[in-house]
Amino acid sequence: MDYRDAGVDIEKGDRIVAGIKRLMGESGSCIGHFGGAIPLPCAGRRNPLLVSSIDGVGTKATVASVLGRYADVGRDLVHHSINDIAVCGAEPLFFLDYIAMGRMDEESAIAAVGGIIKTCQRWGIALVGGETAEMPGVYRDNKFDLVGSITGCVEADEFIDGHSIQEGDWLIGFPSTGLHTNGYSLARQVLHDAAIEYDEYIVELGSTVGDALLAEHRCYLDVIRILKKDFQPRGLAHITGGGLEGNTKRIIPTGLKVVFDWGNWYEPPIFDLIQRIGEVLEEEMRHTFNLGIGLVAILSPVSAQSALDRSDWEFPPVLVGKVVKIT
Amino acid sequence: MDYRDAGVDIEKGDRIVAGIKRLMGESGSCIGHFGGAIPLPCAGRRNPLLVSSIDGVGTKATVASVLGRYADVGRDLVHHSINDIAVCGAEPLFFLDYIAMGRMDEESAIAAVGGIIKTCQRWGIALVGGETAEMPGVYRDNKFDLVGSITGCVEADEFIDGHSIQEGDWLIGFPSTGLHTNGYSLARQVLHDAAIEYDEYIVELGSTVGDALLAEHRCYLDVIRILKKDFQPRGLAHITGGGLEGNTKRIIPTGLKVVFDWGNWYEPPIFDLIQRIGEVLEEEMRHTFNLGIGLVAILSPVSAQSALDRSDWEFPPVLVGKVVKIT
Repeated sequence: MDYRDAGVDIEKGDRIVAGIKRLMGESGSCIGHFGGAIPLPCAGRRNPLLVSSIDGVGTKATVASVLGRYADVGRDLVHHSINDIAVCGAEPLFFLDYIAMGRMDEESAIAAVGGIIKTCQRWGIALVGGETAEMPGVYRDNKFDLVGSITGCVEADEFIDGHSIQEGDWLIGFPSTGLHTNGYSLARQVLHDAAIEYDEYIVELGSTVGDALLAEHRCYLDVIRILKKDFQPRGLAHITGGGLEGNTKRIIPTGLKVVFDWGNWYEPPIFDLIQRIGEVLEEEMRHTFNLGIGLVAILSPVSAQSALDRSDWEFPPVLVGKVVKIT
Repeated sequence: MDYRDAGVDIEKGDRIVAGIKRLMGESGSCIGHFGGAIPLPCAGRRNPLLVSSIDGVGTKATVASVLGRYADVGRDLVHHSINDIAVCGAEPLFFLDYIAMGRMDEESAIAAVGGIIKTCQRWGIALVGGETAEMPGVYRDNKFDLVGSITGCVEADEFIDGHSIQEGDWLIGFPSTGLHTNGYSLARQVLHDAAIEYDEYIVELGSTVGDALLAEHRCYLDVIRILKKDFQPRGLAHITGGGLEGNTKRIIPTGLKVVFDWGNWYEPPIFDLIQRIGEVLEEEMRHTFNLGIGLVAILSPVSAQSALDRSDWEFPPVLVGKVVKIT
């Protein structure tokens, strides 16, 4: 783990490393090496695949920096990343983070990495590397970007890619808490144009705008484990940028499409607020935001019905659409 | 591989995806899924470790964007990443990239990813994922950041971490081509203050300033393979930010230190130019730049001497220092 490579000055880099080591405790012994290592988990596996993804939290980081809530986006980055490989059927193994800022603020960097460390520990993921870069000429002064790379493992015959999805299959959706980590550029623009501040309390939200915007990006790993164990999912989609249509399209076989039951589920009020004050077209809303559904599972009608009937989901799913032939 | 998640608008995202698919050919079939996958290479291994690293190219990207040489920094990102895990003894397996810009320019994004694709193919590395983000509020308008995450594999008893380094060991250094990917913030500041343009031809460089700054970040994988095969390296250090002292310190056991033979090797003239026109202190030069040495191997004196005597290195190493006791 290397916090000295980029533009950060040496003393500041050392203080950040010290802060991160403190947070990691014994697991921080890898810090300072060029690459971090974990045992390659071959034992007991038949034909394992490594599944990997890289992503950022987008401009949710900007909202977090205004409100000083760096740990929250650190957590969200890990949750987003876990979801991206869990929808392929993979169990997460290890994570690496990259933070870049215009001017490095030690406390903020340590807080963001702190959120990452805590969330990795919560889900049993090894944090094997990280990098902090200070690039005043590239990033606007108080702005930062937060990027994470995750790797997990799945047996080849348990890899979920949607190839077995059939006409007539049902899509069930699991609730999101709000924007998760997508659509913040549009949301921020709309709020800015309407002169609404993040600390403003809005009755219909039941919270400040900032709290609604920074609602946790939900981690669906536990949900996906249940689906895999009991409901034979034919496809799983993490609903990020591109919305329900854009993200389910990634796994629907050629010749098929989804018809959505728009309006059949609860939408967190932040979406209506953004649409109303920004006069955003429904089409744009659907392509930008998850609109209340963070995970979609595509199942046979029988499996879908029993999943909907299951009584002990922490956050119960709803029917969001069906797979039909393209005519 | 997901080029639609962040702020990039859908049509532009689709055009970038199409451009990247074209460049990747058959190996681009993974594009569009949430996570990319490769077989986990268990066969024939005893006690394998996965070694991973994440890093950026820093503000070398800024020089590249001014000169429109995006493919070059794509290549450099991969070379830098390979070196970071190769110095742990690992062979690279797969790579993921992340590009973020203030305003997404399709051609530049595709060119940068093109450099990454070509370099991954050259070294037999699977490019399993990528993300392109457009964040006008975070990045200055024409600026971009380029981040890569690499994972490789090594047997646990062949992992190189410097623990066997002893008093009296020799350090041999392999030449860099110039700054590689570190020290660009200082270099750019110095050149800016002296009103030197990137397209200016400088006799002592034998090239334009831009060509000297964008010289290839050398990949040392072949060199490291030879060292591992024939010379039992006790430690390997990729010389990045922090310079020779900062990067060798990472692997030197407690109680030992390095005495360098400063001046015992060829320094590309770009370093002298920066030092002279910026009146940069020698101490700062040594902590910021590699000063002509991109890779250091720490060997027993006997192994070091035979490595120095080897006649067919593509770029012959030199003695750069020795390990001594801290008294």
